[in-house]
Amino acid sequence: MSLLVVGSIALDSVATPFGQTADAPGGSAVFFAAAGCLLHPVQVVGVIGSDYPLGVLKQLESRGVDLTGVEQVEGESFRWKAKYSYDLSSRETLDTRLGVFAHFRPKIPAAFQQAKYVFLGNIDPGLQLGVLDQVTEPDLVACDTMNYWINSKKDLLLELLRHIDILMVNDTEAREISGDWNIYRAAHWILEHGPQRVVIKQGEHGALLVDKETTFKVPAYPLQEVFDPTGAGDAFAGGFMAYVASVKNVSTASLRRAMVHGAAMGSFSVEAFGIEGFDKVTLSDVRARVRAFKDLVHFELD
Amino acid sequence: MSLLVVGSIALDSVATPFGQTADAPGGSAVFFAAAGCLLHPVQVVGVIGSDYPLGVLKQLESRGVDLTGVEQVEGESFRWKAKYSYDLSSRETLDTRLGVFAHFRPKIPAAFQQAKYVFLGNIDPGLQLGVLDQVTEPDLVACDTMNYWINSKKDLLLELLRHIDILMVNDTEAREISGDWNIYRAAHWILEHGPQRVVIKQGEHGALLVDKETTFKVPAYPLQEVFDPTGAGDAFAGGFMAYVASVKNVSTASLRRAMVHGAAMGSFSVEAFGIEGFDKVTLSDVRARVRAFKDLVHFELD
Repeated sequence: MSLLVVGSIALDSVATPFGQTADAPGGSAVFFAAAGCLLHPVQVVGVIGSDYPLGVLKQLESRGVDLTGVEQVEGESFRWKAKYSYDLSSRETLDTRLGVFAHFRPKIPAAFQQAKYVFLGNIDPGLQLGVLDQVTEPDLVACDTMNYWINSKKDLLLELLRHIDILMVNDTEAREISGDWNIYRAAHWILEHGPQRVVIKQGEHGALLVDKETTFKVPAYPLQEVFDPTGAGDAFAGGFMAYVASVKNVSTASLRRAMVHGAAMGSFSVEAFGIEGFDKVTLSDVRARVRAFKDLVHFELD
Repeated sequence: MSLLVVGSIALDSVATPFGQTADAPGGSAVFFAAAGCLLHPVQVVGVIGSDYPLGVLKQLESRGVDLTGVEQVEGESFRWKAKYSYDLSSRETLDTRLGVFAHFRPKIPAAFQQAKYVFLGNIDPGLQLGVLDQVTEPDLVACDTMNYWINSKKDLLLELLRHIDILMVNDTEAREISGDWNIYRAAHWILEHGPQRVVIKQGEHGALLVDKETTFKVPAYPLQEVFDPTGAGDAFAGGFMAYVASVKNVSTASLRRAMVHGAAMGSFSVEAFGIEGFDKVTLSDVRARVRAFKDLVHFELD
């Protein structure tokens, strides 16, 4: 019952008030895998240039990440440079160089095509549809996107919505795709366009899981020190999907637990730069944090 | 075991994208009382001008609000006029006329001085301290404030913090008073300056209850229709304090339930203009909404 992620593999240069990184491994597939592999093996499909530092990917391999689907091609790797505001509430992209990522056409290796749990990271919705053509019978497909595709490829995105189970976006994206500022109406707009469920990531305010009948809210874990918000949403997705893959259960109760595992991974992610937050996290740390979420919202009815 | 609120009694003229009000009853004490009286009788201390429409206050009286402490004096009532943005996320104050409120010196009637639960609405911290001199032995004192007092009367506010049990402010105010943008560090800064607990109201994202050891989060109730955010924080406070008064219990478990009752009242408040949201709410509606909050955050550990 394997778990597949298709997404970007980047080199991030990020400045926050607490420090900075230069060409640190990042991208949606990397954050997803670094978080997810704590709970379940992860198969990655992506592309890197000839300049990509393979050491870090090898480290992920030793933690259960299968890199068979990572293609290395001649050229520069995808690079992204950004600077966060003093309170981390906003960021400015200083430079985006797509490099070999501009020509990324995901090829799913034969060994990955039976993946039961599939996460489509934020790439061109046409490519995301192309991935779905290559996987045979997935049990759960979740998908991210971004404002760029909402604005430039809305039709393809709407087509994609008809073929996925969960759209997993942040609150701004949910508002943009639906044209509705009320986040619950936005969620229901999305549900009317295909997916059975929508996950809305709200950064420091946690995340929502909405289906036609119910809403589940997981808060963000209370952290007095946040170093780098980059990748938290993809780490959330990694925790969510890897939890589902680990229990082989897509019931509502299971997906609620998946939300909490996602939120736990998001919290580990922001506690350090890039994917460094996952270097020392153990399964027992994850379980302790999930229990802490239980206490965070616990109250008894009269 | 009586519950006392001291605060403003105003006439609000509010425009939202969904309609507008003119000279509708508002102010912290009114929103507090309209919400709180669903759970426990409320004693109000405030001031109104000779032009205040007494009919609405009489309606509140019929619901268990004791207006003995509402002084009517010659002059104009406190009026506030504001306009909300299209998505209700921000508002512009168009006019503030303090009228008789400018000379408000709270006098606690003898019959209210034994109040066990006291809420000090947002007024001059010097006046808030003056109220505490007039109540004999309260079990729980909670207090609101605003940026104006944080900037103009910080010393008095810090003095006040040493005499209250719970500071109940919104996230912006918590950041301003502490000078720290991280909401959890801001909360702990406040705890180091007196109160045993701090409640941080986060609008559409719910509220936090923080003490030195623990954090509790209640989300906001998911609403697809929000008409008027005015007064939601005071309605929250009314629900919180009236719950505590109704169960006569200030344990952590009780205060967590109080948070949920506060959030329920906040949600009723924003579903209509002014205090109209409370006109038809019953105790059974409140209980149903509290149960809905339980489901909203419910998950089982593995």
